[in-house]
Amino acid sequence: MPRLVIDIDLGRSGTLSGDDIRLLELIDQKGSITAGGRAHGLRFRQTWERLNTMNHAFNAKLVEAHAGGADGGGSELTSLGREVVRRYRAIEAGAAQTSAADLAAFQALISRRS
Amino acid sequence: MPRLVIDIDLGRSGTLSGDDIRLLELIDQKGSITAGGRAHGLRFRQTWERLNTMNHAFNAKLVEAHAGGADGGGSELTSLGREVVRRYRAIEAGAAQTSAADLAAFQALISRRS
Repeated sequence: MPRLVIDIDLGRSGTLSGDDIRLLELIDQKGSITAGGRAHGLRFRQTWERLNTMNHAFNAKLVEAHAGGADGGGSELTSLGREVVRRYRAIEAGAAQTSAADLAAFQALISRRS
Repeated sequence: MPRLVIDIDLGRSGTLSGDDIRLLELIDQKGSITAGGRAHGLRFRQTWERLNTMNHAFNAKLVEAHAGGADGGGSELTSLGREVVRRYRAIEAGAAQTSAADLAAFQALISRRS
């Protein structure tokens, strides 16, 4: 079944992708930036590059390290981080609902001819 | 103002992007594959590669050349091509509507902090 892939163009602040959101969710689940990034298939440096880009876009941190050193005490989403995830998922859910009939039609257009 | 960028993941048939849809619309407006591609900033070969990928995804032509040779007599969208464009734009319009409040919130989250 065809599905929507949604990016949010933030203008000069760059683009927020579903992959970015998934990374935030995995960091939240694992309670660790390193483990979340690894679960997402990213190396340590790639994970931090993505986070830095997102922090810069929103001009505030989306993830916060606890006491215990850089990721030593674990990490969690800030309230901003939670809001960004929640709003992205809400956008996605709303779009999935309004697009359902058209996506089903795309499915028919593909399979009817293959 | 943040805006959605929507791709449609067609599974094994690939991905349909807003850029693809814009190319189809420009070909329709110009009445020519070459001119539509050029208006989209694509070279002749790039235009055909995109069209071939789309034709393959739907397993039928989205654009039809008129008599007069390859693009000599001009080109226009097939009924399938028109349906693909129409449904993509409908998905986009529906998603823009359901996401409006969340996109406005993203706007505030960005500008409040910059």
